[in-house]
Amino acid sequence: MNYVSRQTLERLPVYLRFLKSQCIDGPINTSAKTIAEALSLTEIQVRKDLAAISDGGKPRIGYITKDLINDLEDFLGYKDVNDAIIVGAGKLGKALMSYKGFAEYGLNIVAGFDTSDEAVGTDEEGKPIFHLDRMEELCRRMNIRIGIITAPADYAQRIADKMVKSGILAIWNFAPAHLEVPDNVLVRNENMAASLAVLSKHLSEQLMNS
Amino acid sequence: MNYVSRQTLERLPVYLRFLKSQCIDGPINTSAKTIAEALSLTEIQVRKDLAAISDGGKPRIGYITKDLINDLEDFLGYKDVNDAIIVGAGKLGKALMSYKGFAEYGLNIVAGFDTSDEAVGTDEEGKPIFHLDRMEELCRRMNIRIGIITAPADYAQRIADKMVKSGILAIWNFAPAHLEVPDNVLVRNENMAASLAVLSKHLSEQLMNS
Repeated sequence: MNYVSRQTLERLPVYLRFLKSQCIDGPINTSAKTIAEALSLTEIQVRKDLAAISDGGKPRIGYITKDLINDLEDFLGYKDVNDAIIVGAGKLGKALMSYKGFAEYGLNIVAGFDTSDEAVGTDEEGKPIFHLDRMEELCRRMNIRIGIITAPADYAQRIADKMVKSGILAIWNFAPAHLEVPDNVLVRNENMAASLAVLSKHLSEQLMNS
Repeated sequence: MNYVSRQTLERLPVYLRFLKSQCIDGPINTSAKTIAEALSLTEIQVRKDLAAISDGGKPRIGYITKDLINDLEDFLGYKDVNDAIIVGAGKLGKALMSYKGFAEYGLNIVAGFDTSDEAVGTDEEGKPIFHLDRMEELCRRMNIRIGIITAPADYAQRIADKMVKSGILAIWNFAPAHLEVPDNVLVRNENMAASLAVLSKHLSEQLMNS
């Protein structure tokens, strides 16, 4: 497996989406220049990123679009299906559970967990929501490796500990909390507070300049 | 206003959350070292970040915790309330509309918009959902500067164009689409596809090594 930097890895899905949006009635070939211009990146950046995951780029011709899409999907693992569970079956948790777009990225949320007895049952799509006590057993049995946290921040660390104990290797954390995990476990923070800080800062600068 | 880098700006809410979690029964003072250790950062990094937004750090004493919290909240604009609108009143849109945690960050979502007549009405909390045709008028009248996009990717650019026309200066984009906007408008992408790529890559590496 080729090593790619975190920054490159985060750009790959953006290339993939652009290529797919072009593909229906687009040209058979795509150049790094076209991609770079469409996505406001430099051509060198695009070339370098794509070289790590595809050997399809040819001088003058560029990339065969469908082959590059294929290479990207292969590399990103979108063809494998990763089963995941979610802890915290509140509004956000349920919204993610029922979001059909994840299938495109190979993510399949099989069940939700919550500590509230009221939440236990099934969601609107019929996916099961269990009591948190049953998480470890279910994760072990189904070999679940991805856990999503949509619980309040105060519970996030305890949930993460429980996930690690259940054999989970990658945690997608929507709670605004810093999590401590062993080295072999990856935490990806969906840091909404950071996003809000960036937005609000931009706003105050724009309003001061106007 | 002090200039801080995007990276620093994204860490500031994390410092704030940590300090607040300490504050109830914690010490009156906090050192950069304590913060660094708790958040797995280097002390130099923490010192540098905090120097940009507070002049409260003293040798041997560190920071007065409540003053530092105050400086962070001031700088991040959490004390000002920013009104926002959201376009795309599906599950994710409604989840964000009803999420009470945003108030802590000074974000107040005043209304939702959708093109589907079925979506128009009020959400569970009684917040109004209007037809998209009314967005410009409402944004102009209420001086709305922040727009949130939770619509499908194919509509995202058209919505962004409409937002720009409505006077919006900062767009929080949850649609997996690249948006073109004028220079004075900031787009913050909540790139879930990138997160999934990072998680899935880590997983396949871990499983290959085991």
